[in-house]
Amino acid sequence: MTEFRRDPITGKWVIIAAGRAKRPDYFKKEQKQGDVVVSCPFCPGNEDKTPKEIRVDPMEAGQNPYWRIRVVPNLYPAAGIIKEGLERPQKLGLYSTMKGYGAHEVIIESPHHNIPFEDQPIEHLMLLFMRFKERVIDLYKDDQIKQVVLYKNHGREAGASISHPHSQLITLPFVPDDLKEELNGARAYYAKEKSCIWCDILMQEMRTNLQIFDETGTSIVRADPLKERVVFENRGFVALCPFASKFPYEMHIIPKRHSHYFGNFGEKENFQEIKDLAEIFKTVIKKLNKALLGIYPESVPYNFFLHTSPNLKFRWNEDKFKTLEFDFHWHFEIHPRTSIEAGFEKGSGSYINVVAPEIASKELRDAPLEIQPSV
Amino acid sequence: MTEFRRDPITGKWVIIAAGRAKRPDYFKKEQKQGDVVVSCPFCPGNEDKTPKEIRVDPMEAGQNPYWRIRVVPNLYPAAGIIKEGLERPQKLGLYSTMKGYGAHEVIIESPHHNIPFEDQPIEHLMLLFMRFKERVIDLYKDDQIKQVVLYKNHGREAGASISHPHSQLITLPFVPDDLKEELNGARAYYAKEKSCIWCDILMQEMRTNLQIFDETGTSIVRADPLKERVVFENRGFVALCPFASKFPYEMHIIPKRHSHYFGNFGEKENFQEIKDLAEIFKTVIKKLNKALLGIYPESVPYNFFLHTSPNLKFRWNEDKFKTLEFDFHWHFEIHPRTSIEAGFEKGSGSYINVVAPEIASKELRDAPLEIQPSV
Repeated sequence: MTEFRRDPITGKWVIIAAGRAKRPDYFKKEQKQGDVVVSCPFCPGNEDKTPKEIRVDPMEAGQNPYWRIRVVPNLYPAAGIIKEGLERPQKLGLYSTMKGYGAHEVIIESPHHNIPFEDQPIEHLMLLFMRFKERVIDLYKDDQIKQVVLYKNHGREAGASISHPHSQLITLPFVPDDLKEELNGARAYYAKEKSCIWCDILMQEMRTNLQIFDETGTSIVRADPLKERVVFENRGFVALCPFASKFPYEMHIIPKRHSHYFGNFGEKENFQEIKDLAEIFKTVIKKLNKALLGIYPESVPYNFFLHTSPNLKFRWNEDKFKTLEFDFHWHFEIHPRTSIEAGFEKGSGSYINVVAPEIASKELRDAPLEIQPSV
Repeated sequence: MTEFRRDPITGKWVIIAAGRAKRPDYFKKEQKQGDVVVSCPFCPGNEDKTPKEIRVDPMEAGQNPYWRIRVVPNLYPAAGIIKEGLERPQKLGLYSTMKGYGAHEVIIESPHHNIPFEDQPIEHLMLLFMRFKERVIDLYKDDQIKQVVLYKNHGREAGASISHPHSQLITLPFVPDDLKEELNGARAYYAKEKSCIWCDILMQEMRTNLQIFDETGTSIVRADPLKERVVFENRGFVALCPFASKFPYEMHIIPKRHSHYFGNFGEKENFQEIKDLAEIFKTVIKKLNKALLGIYPESVPYNFFLHTSPNLKFRWNEDKFKTLEFDFHWHFEIHPRTSIEAGFEKGSGSYINVVAPEIASKELRDAPLEIQPSV
């Protein structure tokens, strides 16, 4: 039984999902048989250990396993679908509470337990990003869903409880806090500047000859070297370590083409854009592993997640999002988990980052890439 | 060299502190000699391994070691004092940056490497909380300091890099995000209700016979059992698991006496109030360890931190905090680190809590306390 509760002071919603405490820790007891882990619920042959598929990409007839990507409901959902539908929050004195409503899905990225995300062939990653997009579009047809949060946990330090490569998505009937702050900030910027702040950040980061002035109109002394924080770029995307990175080696993957909504990604069969996203993701994760090989001999634990616009069809859209199409800009963020948040971060919500993004981006740029054989 | 950088989208400040990456991990190489760990910079005999003391509580003359509590600057500061003083933020195109200014201090809680916080005698904890308070008062004399963040990391999972019991404080020239949200929420509540929201939360949580109505004026069906979320209380304080707890076993310690500022705590030599705080802290940490003994045989990793008002004497107080004295209410929060934040939390800023606060508070209430011999 899942319940949303609102903090009476900050107004933030928390998800109380007592059932999830029971989920098993599969890391402890992996029994391998060749490429297949007998005890892994995501490995071929164990398809009956997950709930019924929402979406499956089949292999060609007669092949084994029968699938390439499976999307299934999470067996231990954080936000279980409730048949009766979404209800308005109830007051309990100072407190507000709302019955859980939403979906929690797992995207099993491939049948191969031991092939991580970044070692998949480009064509397979293209298919995966198409499935990400289709799930968002499909879920946004439900006017009881306000926001999809799509994310990946890689490694135990990043919160993964199953090592078989998989991504997840959770839907919410509200815009979660970090995204709300971005939306508000972007809207305020658009109101003032009549342009998208991500487009302008890309302009500044990618500039070839940009003059910068301080508040009095004087040209400032400090000038960043060219593309100092850029890790990699291709035709469609830029991967950079943001100026105010909260974590060492934090990277944002930003599309050059302005769009508020991930559902517009690769539209009109723009396979070049899909390929560009697959390539830049594969490249920067490989670079991350290479750059930190001395500290993480296997692979760097990380989370990635999507920031895309809320569902404009949500039934109780009180805020109008009139300019959302122009002011928001979908993107992915990659947060390597190389440090532990401590009391300062917990107590302040501010972050101490011990690796400047200019240092991180240089190390990542300089990390050599090996050509991996396709599988 | 420390630098504050503002995120151009959300407006949040991040601390870039490259020097801290070099700090050693003392956990790995502890060499014990009785009660003293040779390699520990906080153990007696190693006083020269820390910078010069800011404050020291001496033992009686001739005793060894010569001190009971030491306050020293952090050797690897997140916010190093800069002689020239605080400067206004500089613009760099879309970005804002500010030179580091502030203090980062370590409070070495006792000479005993192996006596954790909660096993200290009440009288020693009273002295410790008095030192916490005095450091806050002393630092707020500097009009270049806007906010003190006082916190403790216990255990590696909570971010501690030295196991010798210690607390820390960092000062900032801005109000950090989580505290700003609390201040804004509390101010909005006060503007509407003309009362402090923490006082009203205590009223609701401690009620003996409170009727609750929904928005239409109908008495609601659901009524919480009496003091359902309260873990412990004494004359001066209440420890409770908040209604919208973000983490399993999260506890807030809230003074019953309204005050916005921790500097007012125990004023006019109110030793009862100081003793009450020491007692409730000792009690609930012991209960936490007892309740989770099966999972953490040694002790539960946790952070605690203080939320107190910003410095009203700050030189650039743009926001006026006119009602701060009435609307804010200082308190401590304890965040046990029993789970790892994963991609959902990173990507949304929302939290999934797998242990309902009503369950957590019951387990903590029911955890028996042993009487520990004083040291």
